[in-house]
Amino acid sequence: MATNHEETKRKRRRIALVGGTGDLGLGLAARLARAYDVTVGSRDAARAAEAAAEASRLSGVRVEGAENVEAARASDIAVLAIPSLPSDDVLDSLKPAVAGKLVVSPIVPMEVRDGLFSAPPAASSAAERVASVLATRVAAAFHTVPAARLLEVGRALDYDVLVTADTRAVYDEAAAVVSSIPGLRPLYAGPLRNSRMVEEMTPNLLNVGKLNGIKHPSIRVV
Amino acid sequence: MATNHEETKRKRRRIALVGGTGDLGLGLAARLARAYDVTVGSRDAARAAEAAAEASRLSGVRVEGAENVEAARASDIAVLAIPSLPSDDVLDSLKPAVAGKLVVSPIVPMEVRDGLFSAPPAASSAAERVASVLATRVAAAFHTVPAARLLEVGRALDYDVLVTADTRAVYDEAAAVVSSIPGLRPLYAGPLRNSRMVEEMTPNLLNVGKLNGIKHPSIRVV
Repeated sequence: MATNHEETKRKRRRIALVGGTGDLGLGLAARLARAYDVTVGSRDAARAAEAAAEASRLSGVRVEGAENVEAARASDIAVLAIPSLPSDDVLDSLKPAVAGKLVVSPIVPMEVRDGLFSAPPAASSAAERVASVLATRVAAAFHTVPAARLLEVGRALDYDVLVTADTRAVYDEAAAVVSSIPGLRPLYAGPLRNSRMVEEMTPNLLNVGKLNGIKHPSIRVV
Repeated sequence: MATNHEETKRKRRRIALVGGTGDLGLGLAARLARAYDVTVGSRDAARAAEAAAEASRLSGVRVEGAENVEAARASDIAVLAIPSLPSDDVLDSLKPAVAGKLVVSPIVPMEVRDGLFSAPPAASSAAERVASVLATRVAAAFHTVPAARLLEVGRALDYDVLVTADTRAVYDEAAAVVSSIPGLRPLYAGPLRNSRMVEEMTPNLLNVGKLNGIKHPSIRVV
């Protein structure tokens, strides 16, 4: 049968959720585990194992846990499931483990003032910084997908996910990861130099959610 | 009857579309004319009269035309329906005419590079500049409403409109203008210092539309 043939040909790829013990990492792990083998990473191997057990429980599929660099090394794709831009030292430590691989950045630099969110004044983006240090194929994605909704694994999603990447080929690789989660539609938002506009949607949406009583706001392009 | 009583009490307010001879100005004029008296403004009174005739034809309601300052002076609310930030001289010339009135800025500063759009590197927003020169109540709104869809007056809209304003009271005034157009939902996005994030949604959406074959893209917050 065609489907069996396809399955034989296409080995499941492994995704590492680097720093993936928070809500976004766990939520993505649980949702991605249907189409990918998944390893949750943490600086601490014991915390990674705990988070992996939780992601396994949520997804009903076995999810592995490992220290961050080990998780990245064991995987074909790394998602940096961390809330803010790590130091160059931390990124540097990942560099050999992600060489030649796709790295996906959902990182959103944010400041808080008087209870509202904004992007820091720096003109560039977290994704550009990640790409410049890691020197591999980088796409930015998942910024506006509410972690809390990912964690409700029984809940149907219906969100658009803006993706930046310097080439259409890298976009296509990242879009395949996004669209492996039912209800997420990837949309190409241009090269990494456009990432700031995409990353800024998150503080903007968080404000809109807070000021208008919309819980876990996300977007659809219509 | 209560409705008659209400209508007697509530005199229709007049809105000026300053620089309103382009698609956004005409589209807003046509859509706003159901709930407001409307004057289309232009630097040139003859062009304003032509645009007013076109807006009257589109809306089926009489729309006036006048030179910009005259249009603003004759109105209770001024919408700056101009594509890019005017010079301080042009803003200064409007200042006496809009004193004590609500001014709505849909202005989106944009740059084009290799066929894609981005916000200029300047850290602040058009709305903040407008507010600092005009020194009256300013709200930013309408950035992501496609002018082409407004012009199709028979077409039902279903868009969210993010609005910034320094107080909830000024937001409420601007939100009343937005929600007078059926199918537009105003959402408060915080004070004017948040306007850059709102203004940046437009180049971002234009890129997404262009790169993914979505005609006249807009957004809904879900």
